[in-house]
Amino acid sequence: MEPKTDFGTYISSYADFPTQGILFRDISPLLASQVGMMAAIDRFEESLSCYNIDMIAGIESRGFLFSTLLAMRLKVGSIMIRKPGKLPGDLAFKKYELEYGSSELTLQKQAGLEERNVLIVDDLLATGGTLAAAKSLLVEQRANVIACAVVIELLALNGREKLDLPIVALKAYDD
Amino acid sequence: MEPKTDFGTYISSYADFPTQGILFRDISPLLASQVGMMAAIDRFEESLSCYNIDMIAGIESRGFLFSTLLAMRLKVGSIMIRKPGKLPGDLAFKKYELEYGSSELTLQKQAGLEERNVLIVDDLLATGGTLAAAKSLLVEQRANVIACAVVIELLALNGREKLDLPIVALKAYDD
Repeated sequence: MEPKTDFGTYISSYADFPTQGILFRDISPLLASQVGMMAAIDRFEESLSCYNIDMIAGIESRGFLFSTLLAMRLKVGSIMIRKPGKLPGDLAFKKYELEYGSSELTLQKQAGLEERNVLIVDDLLATGGTLAAAKSLLVEQRANVIACAVVIELLALNGREKLDLPIVALKAYDD
Repeated sequence: MEPKTDFGTYISSYADFPTQGILFRDISPLLASQVGMMAAIDRFEESLSCYNIDMIAGIESRGFLFSTLLAMRLKVGSIMIRKPGKLPGDLAFKKYELEYGSSELTLQKQAGLEERNVLIVDDLLATGGTLAAAKSLLVEQRANVIACAVVIELLALNGREKLDLPIVALKAYDD
């Protein structure tokens, strides 16, 4: 049996980015590596095989790097969850609080989410604010939100508690 | 032989979005369709088979929906071309003009682009301003920019002329 990939080898860290005191985790080396990306998708598929997922919701914009890729692997379609002003049509909105100020997510109501088993995909689980807003937006459209898949989880921020969902993370950091 | 997919069946049109007078082409139905997405990636692969591509540059944010997917199919890595403030590290910048005002793209200098054969991926070729800026950014890093792949090309805006590159588009509209 092959040893499990440590995805930390594909993630760079930058102190004080984007602001003082933040240790930024950068997935650029993962994207640059065909071997790393294949291992990432394999791991996601393996970890999600116990769920009956029939749609993926990708969160703008780094979530899009993985949402369509995983949708193709799982043989399902995907939708975009975006910032306001980006999606046309009849939209549902959800405001959420950030550390300073607030933000908002939207999706298209015509996405046909009712009773669908939806997996949320993003690159990062930090405080969980964005993912919780995405979950709430999907639930309001009567989707069954099944789980969240992220590349990186920052454990110290306890985002998991806000979500009350199974989390699949390729790499978890304590700080 | 199977008939060629008309990708127009997977694209919705919205009048006056995001502003008056703009006919917005929405790829949401394509993303939602597993069959459509498979056909899209098959078509890209087929159309690009004559090029020796060894890296893909995806443009934020809808380009990300296709850049990693196509990178996986072509068995190469990918990089992100983003708006300022999003990427950490030592960056290269390129300003470009929009109809009103200007915008800027960035990429990481450490991406190792020298002498690499790069394919640029985005969802849309309109005036070509964004793609031309991406090309120029890559060329400054001494990449060989080989071609552009987009889902939609708006022919009336003549973006092709600005690029001087082979363009692979899944669907072209006259207006």
